[in-house]
Amino acid sequence: MKLNLKTALKMIEAAEAKAEEIEVPMVITVLDGGGNLIAQHRMDDAIFASVDISLNKAYTSVSTKMPSHVIGEASQVDQPLFGINTTNNGRLVIFGGGFPVNDNKGNVIGAIGVSGGEVEDDMSCAEAGLEVLE
Amino acid sequence: MKLNLKTALKMIEAAEAKAEEIEVPMVITVLDGGGNLIAQHRMDDAIFASVDISLNKAYTSVSTKMPSHVIGEASQVDQPLFGINTTNNGRLVIFGGGFPVNDNKGNVIGAIGVSGGEVEDDMSCAEAGLEVLE
Amino acid sequence: MKLNLKTALKMIEAAEAKAEEIEVPMVITVLDGGGNLIAQHRMDDAIFASVDISLNKAYTSVSTKMPSHVIGEASQVDQPLFGINTTNNGRLVIFGGGFPVNDNKGNVIGAIGVSGGEVEDDMSCAEAGLEVLE
Amino acid sequence: MKLNLKTALKMIEAAEAKAEEIEVPMVITVLDGGGNLIAQHRMDDAIFASVDISLNKAYTSVSTKMPSHVIGEASQVDQPLFGINTTNNGRLVIFGGGFPVNDNKGNVIGAIGVSGGEVEDDMSCAEAGLEVLE
Repeated sequence: MKLNLKTALKMIEAAEAKAEEIEVPMVITVLDGGGNLIAQHRMDDAIFASVDISLNKAYTSVSTKMPSHVIGEASQVDQPLFGINTTNNGRLVIFGGGFPVNDNKGNVIGAIGVSGGEVEDDMSCAEAGLEVLE
Repeated sequence: MKLNLKTALKMIEAAEAKAEEIEVPMVITVLDGGGNLIAQHRMDDAIFASVDISLNKAYTSVSTKMPSHVIGEASQVDQPLFGINTTNNGRLVIFGGGFPVNDNKGNVIGAIGVSGGEVEDDMSCAEAGLEVLE
Repeated sequence: MKLNLKTALKMIEAAEAKAEEIEVPMVITVLDGGGNLIAQHRMDDAIFASVDISLNKAYTSVSTKMPSHVIGEASQVDQPLFGINTTNNGRLVIFGGGFPVNDNKGNVIGAIGVSGGEVEDDMSCAEAGLEVLE
Repeated sequence: MKLNLKTALKMIEAAEAKAEEIEVPMVITVLDGGGNLIAQHRMDDAIFASVDISLNKAYTSVSTKMPSHVIGEASQVDQPLFGINTTNNGRLVIFGGGFPVNDNKGNVIGAIGVSGGEVEDDMSCAEAGLEVLE
């Protein structure tokens, strides 16, 4: 099973709906299992620093098979992966908003990354995007 | 007048419809007037080298106010801008498929870039995207 | 409303006047709303590390719609955005001296960034630059 | 003798006056003898690809002690320096518009780079900037 553009757009639409509900404009990115972009949308008035951040939250998740907040926990001061965010040409993001997408056998087939608001907001929009796959 | 996400997606849908008609999967990117991404879609089976190329065709057009094939003509061997494609951190693409988007006063308010097939195919899909603005 | 070169230079001159008053040579940068440079001046004897830093303080502010010291507060150890300074190819600066420029409707139309002295000095010069817009 | 900000701004103003005369908005950059920026102005409506190009035309001239069009001649197909524009992280520009600034003993103390129009236009504005030093 692979993510296709149609499914990626459904995920993005669900994330956008959540973003509208909480009134925080977001940038949402969906990548495939190889870390390559399927789709990215920047909602009107979203900050444009989030173009890079949403993309790389997704990259972090697909390249590590973990949500970005989990990598983040292990990357804090005094934690084992402190400093990991400067590897991979700075593409690893160590706070929440990126999640891997798994198929029904547990294989990672892509990722979603959301940026634009508080970390909790970003995470809730990304989770809304994931829910369309259930 | 600024490009918003809704308009950008209409442009992308029109470019995708043309791509389906000619049976060549494409990557399509729309940027705003500052060169920042509004939306990017990679159609199923499109080559992923085109994620960068479509983005940077659009970047070329918004940052020079010209279609990428026009910059390309001036950048051929023995032409005045030969070598320009290594400036701007390699972001200038010197073949067709990128077009600026103008408002009704002639100001550049964004750009569309398409990549995935022959240059002529890319250009025809980008032009289909521009037509929705007329 | 857009920032033009004339206004940007007035901002820079005001920042320079403050820098002369406090006797700390500065680098001052003004960007437009898309993050593209309008003007940058390095005062005589200013450290040249500040060419990058002033530029990217401004970039931080225009791309996040926040002063760089506010992003900085959220990016300290144990804070939610710890590590954000390695995103955006290292362009986000997490200490003071960058401020967004708003038009009279509250839209971000650019940013000013100042670097060269203590953070407080940088901030006071940037604020002097902003005052010419009032 | 070193270039200072005051002199750099006189050079830029002279280049801007020429640009206004020929009605082509330009980006003008002046660097010191170490290749570090003294000042950069983007005139209203100048294309923003020229922010990078004007900077790096000046960089080319100060780092090679030659006008960029002279490096350009030696970098054409079948010429000895073909390909040099991919060295220095892509910072060498191989067409006209960059000139070194010499002191009265023939030492290179900086450079000016202009971009925004046809190569001949860029060169004439850069030369107008140099003339204020005579």
